[in-house]
Amino acid sequence: MQFHLNGFQPGDPELHRAEQGQGVLPETVDVLIVGSGPAGLVLAAQLAKFPNIITRVVERRGGRLQLGQADGIACRSVEMFNAFGLAEKLVREAYWVNETAFWRPKADDRHSIERTGRVQDTEDGLSEFPHVIVNQARIQDYLLDSMLKSPQRLEPDYHLELEDVTRDDHPTHPVVATLKRTDAEHTLQVRARYLVGCDGARSKVRAAIGQQLRGDAANHAWGVMDVLAVTDFPDMRLKVAVQSASAGNMILIPREGGHLVRMYVDLGEVTEQNRTAIRETTVNQLIATAQRILHPYTLEVKDVAWFSVYEVGQRLTDRFDDAVDADGQVREPRIFIAGDACHTHSAKAGQGMNVSMQDAFNLGWKLGAVLEGRSPASLLASYSHERQPVAQELIGFDKEWSAMIGARPKDPLNPGAGGVDPTELQEYFVKAGRYTAGVATHYHPGPLIGANTWQEQARGLVIGTRFHSAPVIRVADARSVHLGHAAIADGRWRLYAFADASGQGIAALCEYLANNPESPVRRFTGAGADLDSVLDVRAVFQQPHRQIKVEQLPALLLPRKGRFGLIDYEKAFTVDPSANIFEARGIDAIYGAMVLVRPDQYVAHVLPLDAYPELEAFLQSVFIPQ
Amino acid sequence: MQFHLNGFQPGDPELHRAEQGQGVLPETVDVLIVGSGPAGLVLAAQLAKFPNIITRVVERRGGRLQLGQADGIACRSVEMFNAFGLAEKLVREAYWVNETAFWRPKADDRHSIERTGRVQDTEDGLSEFPHVIVNQARIQDYLLDSMLKSPQRLEPDYHLELEDVTRDDHPTHPVVATLKRTDAEHTLQVRARYLVGCDGARSKVRAAIGQQLRGDAANHAWGVMDVLAVTDFPDMRLKVAVQSASAGNMILIPREGGHLVRMYVDLGEVTEQNRTAIRETTVNQLIATAQRILHPYTLEVKDVAWFSVYEVGQRLTDRFDDAVDADGQVREPRIFIAGDACHTHSAKAGQGMNVSMQDAFNLGWKLGAVLEGRSPASLLASYSHERQPVAQELIGFDKEWSAMIGARPKDPLNPGAGGVDPTELQEYFVKAGRYTAGVATHYHPGPLIGANTWQEQARGLVIGTRFHSAPVIRVADARSVHLGHAAIADGRWRLYAFADASGQGIAALCEYLANNPESPVRRFTGAGADLDSVLDVRAVFQQPHRQIKVEQLPALLLPRKGRFGLIDYEKAFTVDPSANIFEARGIDAIYGAMVLVRPDQYVAHVLPLDAYPELEAFLQSVFIPQ
Repeated sequence: MQFHLNGFQPGDPELHRAEQGQGVLPETVDVLIVGSGPAGLVLAAQLAKFPNIITRVVERRGGRLQLGQADGIACRSVEMFNAFGLAEKLVREAYWVNETAFWRPKADDRHSIERTGRVQDTEDGLSEFPHVIVNQARIQDYLLDSMLKSPQRLEPDYHLELEDVTRDDHPTHPVVATLKRTDAEHTLQVRARYLVGCDGARSKVRAAIGQQLRGDAANHAWGVMDVLAVTDFPDMRLKVAVQSASAGNMILIPREGGHLVRMYVDLGEVTEQNRTAIRETTVNQLIATAQRILHPYTLEVKDVAWFSVYEVGQRLTDRFDDAVDADGQVREPRIFIAGDACHTHSAKAGQGMNVSMQDAFNLGWKLGAVLEGRSPASLLASYSHERQPVAQELIGFDKEWSAMIGARPKDPLNPGAGGVDPTELQEYFVKAGRYTAGVATHYHPGPLIGANTWQEQARGLVIGTRFHSAPVIRVADARSVHLGHAAIADGRWRLYAFADASGQGIAALCEYLANNPESPVRRFTGAGADLDSVLDVRAVFQQPHRQIKVEQLPALLLPRKGRFGLIDYEKAFTVDPSANIFEARGIDAIYGAMVLVRPDQYVAHVLPLDAYPELEAFLQSVFIPQ
Repeated sequence: MQFHLNGFQPGDPELHRAEQGQGVLPETVDVLIVGSGPAGLVLAAQLAKFPNIITRVVERRGGRLQLGQADGIACRSVEMFNAFGLAEKLVREAYWVNETAFWRPKADDRHSIERTGRVQDTEDGLSEFPHVIVNQARIQDYLLDSMLKSPQRLEPDYHLELEDVTRDDHPTHPVVATLKRTDAEHTLQVRARYLVGCDGARSKVRAAIGQQLRGDAANHAWGVMDVLAVTDFPDMRLKVAVQSASAGNMILIPREGGHLVRMYVDLGEVTEQNRTAIRETTVNQLIATAQRILHPYTLEVKDVAWFSVYEVGQRLTDRFDDAVDADGQVREPRIFIAGDACHTHSAKAGQGMNVSMQDAFNLGWKLGAVLEGRSPASLLASYSHERQPVAQELIGFDKEWSAMIGARPKDPLNPGAGGVDPTELQEYFVKAGRYTAGVATHYHPGPLIGANTWQEQARGLVIGTRFHSAPVIRVADARSVHLGHAAIADGRWRLYAFADASGQGIAALCEYLANNPESPVRRFTGAGADLDSVLDVRAVFQQPHRQIKVEQLPALLLPRKGRFGLIDYEKAFTVDPSANIFEARGIDAIYGAMVLVRPDQYVAHVLPLDAYPELEAFLQSVFIPQ
């Protein structure tokens, strides 16, 4: 954490100075976010980092979410929370998913279950963070608390429901939202430069831009409950997939605090015939089903914190924006949708909240860069282009996964009756681990993702995937830190320069970046702004840290910043001998490499250290010369 | 973290339910704490964990401390903060002291300095936490925030200065404090069962109980400043001890946030002749001295956050309580002093705030246990008996350390002129590492510290020293955790039972503890209270975690708790193969061991697994049968 740059400030360093609260909802805003779920709040938390952008969030509910809904936080999402400074709090409070256990009918007594396997939940080295579980309400609390500390003191305007959204030809604020108070007879209109619908599966914003959720007609029903219970089932504090012979399937997920457990009980496909009965399922029926599934173990539910019965199909919109008008003409997108508004699927793979938040993380920095005049508006088209295929993949994965988990277990005495062998399920689970951890997202080459011409220079930092962090030693204070944690959610791009063996390449690169008029740092950084405010360059050397002389570092790596021109000492790193990053990430130790990372932590490009023209060419379409 | 035991509660799990704020200062309290510095607030934060104890803190200042004063947090103090749930926040925000550099006059140019060495600040494996630096004001903020989340919503009553404290023969509340408002002409009286003076070096409580700071007459003067500066001195982000040939000595300590630096400039011994001049030292004079010391490096101070000139001698009181009356008669102590009120010394070894907080941590649980009726009042005499010798040791250490750091560097061309060789200084620093990390405190055998008869059963968990944590796997959820982190600051004792190879000893111990009428668990736990509410038993097994069957654990290790009788799954652990605790802490893997740990995390006793009579005998004087 860096602070006090412009003078000592007492108190919480994350509480930014503000004149006052955000005040009443203005008639004109830069970004209007509809909905304060995980997608809406990640977007809001990101935009709150830009003090000059007027962002507002409207929410139909009267206040914060208290309980229920999603609870799984994939490793990748924890990495994102770390960029917001929220990971410590999250991993401290959450349940950690360390192992998953599989249970199936006993071979010699099909009405009882037995454990068939335990697997490590997340493969070693996949992320520096664990897979955790915590109530969606708490996830939202963290984000809301972070927003409240921003200079704008951003908080949702509650009791406001979107009635309609239209787009006209207003030169700067073409989006008009009509909002209705849910606690009074009253409507109001807000004009916005951009509007983002994070308003869930029944999104009105989606309808307004003419998008539809398409996909399977069939819905699958699940009962879900958060309970405090006493049981002799031994795996009550492990994530568990249970396939019973005749009572159905269940997923059991321990929750934060050491006592609470979530149970997902499979209620089967919804048909015209059973729809009413399924919708009327009571919590006592859910408990009774869970008890039958767990037989011969007992389950005594003492307290139900929350329960719900829901139906979900695998559906998706064609686009996540309004970049194609009613006549099929391409235009600049002004209205976006994110999260459940664009994709619905089962909760079984624990992906919903995670993919929704990653939607918002993808869009947030782009809106920030365009609104701050650092990047061209064309950047915004990439949001739908990048995220719609990710959702498409998720739907495909979810179909496979749901089929596996929803199937009856194969009966060894009656294999012809079909079903899934529990061993297959377990193998599939392990294979899908990278996907469910959220680290398999791979954006295709495009304006924001380079070609893989030079991928070999840094084999383990795959272009188009999230930057996979590793430990390094920070030179100035000899501290072991995670290199990727330099990437805080502040909208800046990072250029990690991994030094060549001779040191000449890295020296030349720093000289070029600092002094050549064509260098992206020179061209794209505004007059008077800190040298690293657009492109944040960090170097990773190879010598033991005590051999690096701070006084001989290139000036670029000791930039003078803020009103006092203080030196930023956090730009130079070197290998941590206990976990050499060059080896861990396959970086060319002879020639080094440049690794360009986007504000959402995705690797945009890998280039040789001297590929100045290629770097310039790539960033040409990303930034506007200042 | 465990929560939701008595039903799901939305929101921050650390924010306990409360009816209202703490309200106006009552006329009668259980504990009155005078002063809200580090000692006063650790004590208050500890007592805030006991909802039935009425604790109040009075503070002369008008509100929270904003800046200045101490800043070094030894590893041991971070361990203590972890027990309060505050370590993550602290280590995230703080500067980490990783290395210390030593500078001395150049051999060939005595007016310039050169680096003579760099040493790792904290030896590997000394603690799971780093040595960190953060403003005392922030340390106090963490504690104040923690108190505000307690059921009492405890916060200091500001603008109240102690005028006098007396003790009479009132049967329950014999202490009478007279307080004066600092913002109005008004005094008031409060009666307390106990009063603790955490009111600093000029303590009025100390005077009231007839204690005096005794020790060296001479004071040493230091100038201290927190600055934002630009320099070409390369070690600006390392802790540095500089000895210059003729400009004096300086200690440079980087601070939180990446920019701020604290500098301690030695101003020498205070004499009658120079006292006035020293007291009038300006910040510009301090800066000029720092500039001369750092020559040939430049130092351009851009902003001074805080500066002070202070004089300190090494002084100590005979006792830390009023257990001996004016006639020399021993009595039950009712008034205590802690921190600077009992001991003063230099800031150079970074020990002041740490030792003060450990004073309070030692006293807090004892007051809690006595006031809750779990322990006899005789427990309270141990506070002064244990902590006064620690302060005595600190004074001794500080004298040596101050002499080293305050001395002129030896001139190789003129060795006869005396001084300290910088290599000696560096060697001394390394040797003193355990002490400065705060882990060298070793309480002598007494009512709360057992004899070392069976120390060999767990050689690395030394009786009388703080429990040195190590990783283990928690059986029920397969998570790697630190065993010592089971010890939260809730006033409970812990009994860590390390299993024997056969498993018979641990099984018998659990059976005895749960069912034998003589067992401490049975005798000392009140009717209706959770089984682990007085003595929290945790077992550490030796098998790989997947070989341990949760369903076969002794009932003691799956206790039923709270209003629903929920199972606590966090009592059984086993070795983490990557860091076998039996090997790391020298625990007898054949016979196992019992390790009894006090609420302040000090090892009270090490016993064989079957030493039931010895355990009973030891705890006999600690607890009152219920």
